[in-house]
Amino acid sequence: MLISGSEAVFKAIKEGKPLEKIYLQANINASWVSEIKALAREWMIPVHKVPVEKLNSLHVIGHDGCIAQIARVLYHDLQQIIDVTVEAGVVPLFLMLDGITDIRNIGGIARSAYAMGVQAIIIPERGVGTLNEDAMLTSAGALEHIAVCRERSLMKAVDTLHLNGIKVYATEMNADTKISNCDFTIPCAIVMGAEETGIYPALLKICDEKCKIPMTGNFDSLNVSVATGIVLYEVVRQREL
Amino acid sequence: MLISGSEAVFKAIKEGKPLEKIYLQANINASWVSEIKALAREWMIPVHKVPVEKLNSLHVIGHDGCIAQIARVLYHDLQQIIDVTVEAGVVPLFLMLDGITDIRNIGGIARSAYAMGVQAIIIPERGVGTLNEDAMLTSAGALEHIAVCRERSLMKAVDTLHLNGIKVYATEMNADTKISNCDFTIPCAIVMGAEETGIYPALLKICDEKCKIPMTGNFDSLNVSVATGIVLYEVVRQREL
Repeated sequence: MLISGSEAVFKAIKEGKPLEKIYLQANINASWVSEIKALAREWMIPVHKVPVEKLNSLHVIGHDGCIAQIARVLYHDLQQIIDVTVEAGVVPLFLMLDGITDIRNIGGIARSAYAMGVQAIIIPERGVGTLNEDAMLTSAGALEHIAVCRERSLMKAVDTLHLNGIKVYATEMNADTKISNCDFTIPCAIVMGAEETGIYPALLKICDEKCKIPMTGNFDSLNVSVATGIVLYEVVRQREL
Repeated sequence: MLISGSEAVFKAIKEGKPLEKIYLQANINASWVSEIKALAREWMIPVHKVPVEKLNSLHVIGHDGCIAQIARVLYHDLQQIIDVTVEAGVVPLFLMLDGITDIRNIGGIARSAYAMGVQAIIIPERGVGTLNEDAMLTSAGALEHIAVCRERSLMKAVDTLHLNGIKVYATEMNADTKISNCDFTIPCAIVMGAEETGIYPALLKICDEKCKIPMTGNFDSLNVSVATGIVLYEVVRQREL
């Protein structure tokens, strides 16, 4: 679903309609540009500057250099979710996805996360595919229920977690500590990286502890959705002991 | 890769070439039919009776009512794998897939199974998609390494496991026992069923114990590939203690 034209987009933002992203024509010279950029920043909506051909290819009439895509997922504010979780007396459990771009993997992960009681999935604003119908399907509907926090910077999100007393675990194939030897009964967040590249080094550095999934085969490779399911199971196992 | 014509198929079977399946023209009246059927039975190659149009649609020349598909996976004999495992002094760990038809799920499961040290995956002869290039890709190559046993009857395969002193665990959403309370340090096999239908009732009945993955969310649904990864992790966790 698309909203066409700067005025309609303005209205949608002000009404609090969840927007996935805003396409803005590159090099456009219009009075509303700076205002819409400021509003998008305030509401944490990514703005993509694109050539006019991209806008025309979306086949909507009356765009004046501005088209917005309505979000299928309701994005939440991380601090707000932390507050709600703590107030409810639940031990925080967050999941941060770094560099996981395949939306079907994100859908699969959301399904496990929701089943395992994760309060929110934290994803970066950039580099993630649109959470569309495909992601919804792979998540078996979980993405409509679980909170998703879309953060401009995952580094800053880790800061927020730290400020709230939440320990941040990074899963890494080469870590020394097995997940079963980590204490997941405390308020914590788990960072999962992409299969090929792992977690971004600077992000890995500010995490509190690295942990790995033990494997006995001579094949140290798991699908990221499976790996996430395993770590979340380990959290539930420990918390239910 | 296809082999066309009864004579070429005969030759391939006798040379021990791994065949995925044999397509046989329905209602064909030829002298070689009963012989090829007997040979296929002996070598455990599924025979599919199909209309001549199906054979013609495969676009190979010179089929005389018989076309065979070369297997991408080398199928093994279950008893043989058990013998090899026991002789090697390894505690048996087998994985049986019941009703899991999606070959991408099977590929994903094979990847986890290989990483977690499973000795063989047991699948039924019927009702499973061809383990083709897609399955290979999803398995990240694991399907080329892990043994696959293709059984005419999973019931009979459970008998074989029992006769070899291997305990058979069935995973079921509504089981009372949590997987962390099962003893996976003993020789064992784990049966996974399809997400929608679970394990076939008669098969479930002859399994030794039912177990479930604990979930805290109000959404008791995991992808079967994720669920398999979690159970296999629990086995490795217990065996490494």
